Amino acid sequence: MRALVKTGPRPGMELREVPVPTFGPSDVLIRVKAAGVCGTDLHIWEWDSWASNRLRPPVVIGHEFAGEIADLGPQAAAEGLLKVGDKVTAEGHIICGHCLQCRTGHGHLCTRTRIIGVDRDGAFADYIAMPATNVIPLEGIPVDIGAIMDPIGNAVHTVLEGDAVTGSTVFVLGCGPIGCFACGVAKAAGASLVVASDYNDLRLGLARKMGADVTLNPGKDDVLSRILELTGGVGVDLICEMSGHPAGHAQAFAAARLGGRVNLLGTPSRSTEVDFARDIIFKGLTLYGVTGRKMYSTWHQMTRFLRSGQLDPLPVVTHRFPLEGIADAIAVIKEGSAGKVILEIAQ
Amino acid sequence: MRALVKTGPRPGMELREVPVPTFGPSDVLIRVKAAGVCGTDLHIWEWDSWASNRLRPPVVIGHEFAGEIADLGPQAAAEGLLKVGDKVTAEGHIICGHCLQCRTGHGHLCTRTRIIGVDRDGAFADYIAMPATNVIPLEGIPVDIGAIMDPIGNAVHTVLEGDAVTGSTVFVLGCGPIGCFACGVAKAAGASLVVASDYNDLRLGLARKMGADVTLNPGKDDVLSRILELTGGVGVDLICEMSGHPAGHAQAFAAARLGGRVNLLGTPSRSTEVDFARDIIFKGLTLYGVTGRKMYSTWHQMTRFLRSGQLDPLPVVTHRFPLEGIADAIAVIKEGSAGKVILEIAQ
Amino acid sequence: MRALVKTGPRPGMELREVPVPTFGPSDVLIRVKAAGVCGTDLHIWEWDSWASNRLRPPVVIGHEFAGEIADLGPQAAAEGLLKVGDKVTAEGHIICGHCLQCRTGHGHLCTRTRIIGVDRDGAFADYIAMPATNVIPLEGIPVDIGAIMDPIGNAVHTVLEGDAVTGSTVFVLGCGPIGCFACGVAKAAGASLVVASDYNDLRLGLARKMGADVTLNPGKDDVLSRILELTGGVGVDLICEMSGHPAGHAQAFAAARLGGRVNLLGTPSRSTEVDFARDIIFKGLTLYGVTGRKMYSTWHQMTRFLRSGQLDPLPVVTHRFPLEGIADAIAVIKEGSAGKVILEIAQ
Amino acid sequence: MRALVKTGPRPGMELREVPVPTFGPSDVLIRVKAAGVCGTDLHIWEWDSWASNRLRPPVVIGHEFAGEIADLGPQAAAEGLLKVGDKVTAEGHIICGHCLQCRTGHGHLCTRTRIIGVDRDGAFADYIAMPATNVIPLEGIPVDIGAIMDPIGNAVHTVLEGDAVTGSTVFVLGCGPIGCFACGVAKAAGASLVVASDYNDLRLGLARKMGADVTLNPGKDDVLSRILELTGGVGVDLICEMSGHPAGHAQAFAAARLGGRVNLLGTPSRSTEVDFARDIIFKGLTLYGVTGRKMYSTWHQMTRFLRSGQLDPLPVVTHRFPLEGIADAIAVIKEGSAGKVILEIAQ
Repeated sequence: MRALVKTGPRPGMELREVPVPTFGPSDVLIRVKAAGVCGTDLHIWEWDSWASNRLRPPVVIGHEFAGEIADLGPQAAAEGLLKVGDKVTAEGHIICGHCLQCRTGHGHLCTRTRIIGVDRDGAFADYIAMPATNVIPLEGIPVDIGAIMDPIGNAVHTVLEGDAVTGSTVFVLGCGPIGCFACGVAKAAGASLVVASDYNDLRLGLARKMGADVTLNPGKDDVLSRILELTGGVGVDLICEMSGHPAGHAQAFAAARLGGRVNLLGTPSRSTEVDFARDIIFKGLTLYGVTGRKMYSTWHQMTRFLRSGQLDPLPVVTHRFPLEGIADAIAVIKEGSAGKVILEIAQ
Repeated sequence: MRALVKTGPRPGMELREVPVPTFGPSDVLIRVKAAGVCGTDLHIWEWDSWASNRLRPPVVIGHEFAGEIADLGPQAAAEGLLKVGDKVTAEGHIICGHCLQCRTGHGHLCTRTRIIGVDRDGAFADYIAMPATNVIPLEGIPVDIGAIMDPIGNAVHTVLEGDAVTGSTVFVLGCGPIGCFACGVAKAAGASLVVASDYNDLRLGLARKMGADVTLNPGKDDVLSRILELTGGVGVDLICEMSGHPAGHAQAFAAARLGGRVNLLGTPSRSTEVDFARDIIFKGLTLYGVTGRKMYSTWHQMTRFLRSGQLDPLPVVTHRFPLEGIADAIAVIKEGSAGKVILEIAQ
Repeated sequence: MRALVKTGPRPGMELREVPVPTFGPSDVLIRVKAAGVCGTDLHIWEWDSWASNRLRPPVVIGHEFAGEIADLGPQAAAEGLLKVGDKVTAEGHIICGHCLQCRTGHGHLCTRTRIIGVDRDGAFADYIAMPATNVIPLEGIPVDIGAIMDPIGNAVHTVLEGDAVTGSTVFVLGCGPIGCFACGVAKAAGASLVVASDYNDLRLGLARKMGADVTLNPGKDDVLSRILELTGGVGVDLICEMSGHPAGHAQAFAAARLGGRVNLLGTPSRSTEVDFARDIIFKGLTLYGVTGRKMYSTWHQMTRFLRSGQLDPLPVVTHRFPLEGIADAIAVIKEGSAGKVILEIAQ
Repeated sequence: MRALVKTGPRPGMELREVPVPTFGPSDVLIRVKAAGVCGTDLHIWEWDSWASNRLRPPVVIGHEFAGEIADLGPQAAAEGLLKVGDKVTAEGHIICGHCLQCRTGHGHLCTRTRIIGVDRDGAFADYIAMPATNVIPLEGIPVDIGAIMDPIGNAVHTVLEGDAVTGSTVFVLGCGPIGCFACGVAKAAGASLVVASDYNDLRLGLARKMGADVTLNPGKDDVLSRILELTGGVGVDLICEMSGHPAGHAQAFAAARLGGRVNLLGTPSRSTEVDFARDIIFKGLTLYGVTGRKMYSTWHQMTRFLRSGQLDPLPVVTHRFPLEGIADAIAVIKEGSAGKVILEIAQ
């Protein structure tokens, strides 16, 4: 089969012929139809310090995908809950099921997590093998949306963690694809006001298409003044920090109301100076670090939003390429001219 | 009446004769019996930058106290819920009741909070006037314990915020009086393991008296190694950060298990460098800034603990002085040779 | 001033001239503009057994209203948070602030609750006096909506209690005014599916106007079969029981999914046979009894919904009468030909 | 191997030689050391209507057990998390992992649950095969305690569901083994007052040994009066309904404070008349039906309690028999002269 492989310790990926993956008794083999390209894939392409420390080439890249079940291991088949031909996506974190985190509803923080396309072979290929318990039937969700449910799930996790977002004011700080999805999720979840900010006007346009009530460009707008104005001087209930920049953190803490919440998903590459007394303690803030998707309550909430039509993520998808177009896909992401980018792998 | 007054913009306090406070229709007048001396009072005594920016002398100092109702305004009397002679303490944050925070169960974060002994006359005096709704009947709790329910309440708030502490592992980082109380609260609340740390061995002795299972001195012990050893390599569920030091923050984040919680009460005087990616986001941590006491669920939980005998805070009380001994009280706190210090104002 | 008064132990109400109410130092005097007529007012009109046991005539009736502040007691004025001319509504439960319930965020269950229009003089009058803390500024919400925020708040309380309704399937069982409001609240809060049932097709029409996705008439439809069909055989996440009938209870328990929730607001006049093993324990259900509105988190959520335009309750209002039209108002409610009925008391 | 088998549709069980169970790739084979005898086993022994509708003989009985891993399927072995010789117990509900309940943290309510000793072969035998994910390592918990962690887990689930039991007043209504365990769990979890009731004085003695502060016998004591007296007239925060009797339900609702909670575990054999208006709605109560143990947060909490020494369940164990003594075990349970009964199957 075809696969995009990181073949050695250097930038780029190679489109190669490799064997169809073997799969265990509790696994399913999935014919990949479409896959999402993620910022993580860009780090892997560029072979930055994170990538070179984490990956052990050769490894097939890609962790966002959807497709069709092609075969099942005997135990997975015996369960009778999945069958050949089912349209599916999958959670890409493969977890142990036995550690404290797995045992207490925090499997997304399993100490033994192995991620497809990073720690084991991934989805930029004609086939991928996945444990049956990681598989999510699409049941009517289109395959191209299925292919990006991993990052939509990041947005669902970020927006829904904590007190109900219903009736709340939300500030999405950073409008990459997950930030744009977060705007749509917040509206679907009954937020009363969604404000989004980014330096990139193309992204702000996508955020508006996803339902942001107000968009602000920190290069032009006085973000804090506008937020105070929009919230009657109170500040916002929930900040979704998607930028990963120290300046974003500072703005998040300043924009939060007394007793507000900051859910942090954007992963910074350097440290931030925090005035805990002024910004966290005297304000009574709650901060929460978002990793992955809750397994599987996030997936449940997301499928409800998608099947009911409350959330349509497709406006965020700006580019589609074939598998051999990976270099072009990486290029549009890198130059900031893309929303979400999809690889179309099979009909 | 006698009162300890900050008379002008300079260190110290003066014991003066001042008029008994007037009180409004919904207020009660309380004869103060005992009062706690707090780190905040030390800042006020020393007239540091916080104090000089916040206080407007002359003001009577003191915010932790208990006493006996001496008189009631007509509306407070008409309600019939409090009466002359009742032994009481009181929440020292006087709030507006109308702002978003007050309306949503977060009155401890009211935007219009006025604190006794800071923003209005306080309790180091023979009498204090308080709104009836701030008054908490002692109903069997001894007056000297009533006098320190403000800081005990800080500890209750810090320990009980978040997922149930029951069955959890808890690390109390910093063993001033509130840290020591936190050890007792965590045990009362069913924590499975309470570890406490401080550089001061006297304080570690008080922490052990309050129920800490293990005490560690960072000057002698490898705190992180010991914590990992005590938790089977997992880290602790809940950290109560009482030190307010950047080094404490770093240790708190490192000691927390994946998905753990850090409740921060210690107020730092300078900023901390935080590696959000490594310490908060990839660990899935929750951070929470603790201000005051929840009004009034913290008080309800605290009175339950105290009346049932589940929590005895008296081992933390190391010194008692008369009102005129304030300089000695401040001295023992400053030199680190005290746990909790009480002023005995009346029989 | 004019007032509708229950003058003695018999059916009906009398429009009388009575003195403008006196008010205390912490109270405000409100010029009533509009008032809602409630099922409770029907019970009082008819002088049923509940009414005759609870009311002590003479008493001015009416507990749902909005108007304009006409005067303030000195303490309320001194606070500076309300002023003459402010458009306001108010929570009609006047509570003690001192009992366990009041102290732990459950003031709606205060043991000493006194309800306006029931236990003390109410709002079917030109003026009413209210404690300042019970007053809610409308800040842009129209006065006729303000007049019915009491029952809208019942709906908000019923729909939002428990796990987030966001992404949930909701079954509103009974489409009186509060049931109709509940349909709108569930949609505003991000429910994925709202099913409503009633025997009255006029009410089902109002439920659809408020956003119900599917309406069912138990006289014509097989409600349970349809609900299982609509939920993929699973049952619904949340039932809002608004009917108060034993048959409604049975249907609620049967319609709930395993692990679902039934919030009960409809107050039955007789008892229900419950098979706790089959219906509650083996299904892992949660039941919750809804009284009033949470003070004041329900009001906060409701004002957010109303000010953002997420919720428009006006389609439920079918009739408006002047104060002297009370008999007609009672008649349309009694014959089941009305949604919500408003008394227009002043311009 | 030896096994106690329900061989056909009639009372009793037979001790038979049967083959050691086969096991799948993800399963482990466990050498059973000890097993608990449960009320469910009594129903099965007596072949009552529930049993005759549910069981399909022949089936090996028994669902509470602990033992030692004797062998592992290849996938379970490859995971490397369990190994031959590990002392273990196991959750006896085998679930699908794919349904809404399994996907949202409510696997204890899985629609496809199969229970060992009921729907498939159980633990009153020398060996049992279990899925590896159901296995809980004892790690220091004695085997005889491991053998009864299933019913201890029922108690943990009942006591800990809902707002924190810490600082609460708890009424355990019915002191069979799970009720007695619940008394110990409530104390371990920081309850301020635990009251227990039963008609059987032997059981009340066990409840006291487990930490009940007050025990009441409804045959001799005025239970409601005593509860109001003990709670200052307020009623209790949490009722654990373990009796399964309509009279127990009535007493539970009456004993609950306004805004209180009733967690129901006792499974009644007939229906109860409920006055929803008076007992549930106007009181603002929450009711919750307890099924099994939360998978696996209940197990996590329980192991913390047991390993820390906060909970010692052994005082409840009154009888131990060999496997061939099953008739005697059933007899002591039936006559009400037993607490918890254990079968000692191997050294």
